[in-house]
Amino acid sequence: MPVADQEIWGPVTIYEVGPRDGLQNESGSIPTEVKAELIRRLLAAGLPIVEATSFVHPSWVPQLADAEDLMRMLGDGLGDRSRDLPVLVPNERGLDRALELGCRHVAIFGSATETFARKNLNRSLDEQFAMFEPVVRRARDAGLDVRAYVSMCFGDPWEGAVPIDQVVSVGQRLFDLGASQLSLGDTIGVGTAGHVGALVDAFAEAGMQRGDLALHFHDTYGQALSNVQAGLRAGIRTFDASAGGLGGCPYAKSATGNLATEDLVWLLTGLGIEHGVDLAALVETSTWLAGHLGRPSPSAVVRALAG
Amino acid sequence: MPVADQEIWGPVTIYEVGPRDGLQNESGSIPTEVKAELIRRLLAAGLPIVEATSFVHPSWVPQLADAEDLMRMLGDGLGDRSRDLPVLVPNERGLDRALELGCRHVAIFGSATETFARKNLNRSLDEQFAMFEPVVRRARDAGLDVRAYVSMCFGDPWEGAVPIDQVVSVGQRLFDLGASQLSLGDTIGVGTAGHVGALVDAFAEAGMQRGDLALHFHDTYGQALSNVQAGLRAGIRTFDASAGGLGGCPYAKSATGNLATEDLVWLLTGLGIEHGVDLAALVETSTWLAGHLGRPSPSAVVRALAG
Repeated sequence: MPVADQEIWGPVTIYEVGPRDGLQNESGSIPTEVKAELIRRLLAAGLPIVEATSFVHPSWVPQLADAEDLMRMLGDGLGDRSRDLPVLVPNERGLDRALELGCRHVAIFGSATETFARKNLNRSLDEQFAMFEPVVRRARDAGLDVRAYVSMCFGDPWEGAVPIDQVVSVGQRLFDLGASQLSLGDTIGVGTAGHVGALVDAFAEAGMQRGDLALHFHDTYGQALSNVQAGLRAGIRTFDASAGGLGGCPYAKSATGNLATEDLVWLLTGLGIEHGVDLAALVETSTWLAGHLGRPSPSAVVRALAG
Repeated sequence: MPVADQEIWGPVTIYEVGPRDGLQNESGSIPTEVKAELIRRLLAAGLPIVEATSFVHPSWVPQLADAEDLMRMLGDGLGDRSRDLPVLVPNERGLDRALELGCRHVAIFGSATETFARKNLNRSLDEQFAMFEPVVRRARDAGLDVRAYVSMCFGDPWEGAVPIDQVVSVGQRLFDLGASQLSLGDTIGVGTAGHVGALVDAFAEAGMQRGDLALHFHDTYGQALSNVQAGLRAGIRTFDASAGGLGGCPYAKSATGNLATEDLVWLLTGLGIEHGVDLAALVETSTWLAGHLGRPSPSAVVRALAG
């Protein structure tokens, strides 16, 4: 299903996941003030969407136990705009917390495979939808927008290659529940360019809109930016990325960092694609954060420009 | 100038440059036996072309001062096959040394920019052709095959973006001298996918054959594999890569490692493109070499698979 050049190379929305997906995988404790400052700096650098935190139970992800404090701190500085920052809500209790704070955008986190659903959600592939149904319904009833992450869309460390039909079926069910956007994740970073195009085309052929899909790549096997290019060519307009390459997946040993936002910006700028991000300000922010984390950024662009 | 799918996705030749381009940039001294073992292992892993060394003056690149010893050592193990390993010859003296050893494939190293020609060759952009002319003529007269590297084809640290016409003109002059293949290098790694396609198309429009072009990428800004994908889509069949991501450019501060052969193999395998390389054997080789170098490989695939 060919896409015209004009459509392929139009503006792109970068969905910044560093403060949530990145920091939840940091072993050390990061002061809430630093997290708030990170988010403010990312917004100031022009990133249109910055996922702020996750309302997950603190015993699961202690790194984000300060979610309420963080959102209130952001409200002090950003005012009403802080309510537009997406937050992850793993379940109804998480949604309750987001609703109490007046958040307008929430995200749920599903799995494309049976094994990862059991490991990450303690549910079967089918049972996850029963868990998500009241979350999405209540969020929509309250006027919130719901993004659905789909993890393990390309390969799974226990099951190997994941059938495209299976991913499309999971995605369709999440749209049917009321999600407005899917973020299709290559959680262990094994996918390559042809697989990306085939997956996107399969969603389109099943009647879903390319504009409602985002792609979320990890650089474990060095493929993240090549996969972005394949996604662009397949007509995708939204890409997740993590400032400085922060993050990974705590339950998949080989999963290294997310695609670095700076590396994505370099590609988009080179292609003449509008993205709205000030690269110098972003690199400065990642360098500043690396100082707090006590280790250099894994982003190639950060290393090249900050060196 | 569109290229049919079949032509885009046919078999690819990986031109392995690690033992020359990689090891010439290593600060430590590596025993000749280790270099010979590296080359033997790369060939055994299925790499069809392994550039062995450079007959550069030892005062310029002391790391390769053992070039004759290495070629003789390879001859002991590989016999006549060692004469098929390409060697770099920067000038006539280098060619003399290659001819004495019976080498059948040589490479010269040119520049697409004035500043880098002066810094690397101590000659103007025009004067480099006068230096290369007798090298290529004598090599061809002796029945040798000549590859020409063209460095700084995308950006130059002193001149910025390099005009495509200028690169095409340099390439045309090298073909006119008698080179049979050009390796177009993004020496500082700044290029992106659209630039790659435009450069290849410009060569084709100027009457040169895509099959006579190779692409040589560096991962300084994380773009190497994305650029390979663009090259594949533009009809290129030969890509340079360096086992384990060894190498860089000693005269360009920001130039980090070459594209890792393992990362390239992962992409090609994912795309269903024939390449003939045994990835496990290659990863084992790079891990073994990393032990000799005393630091981990920068290749994402090596880190993921050897971890």
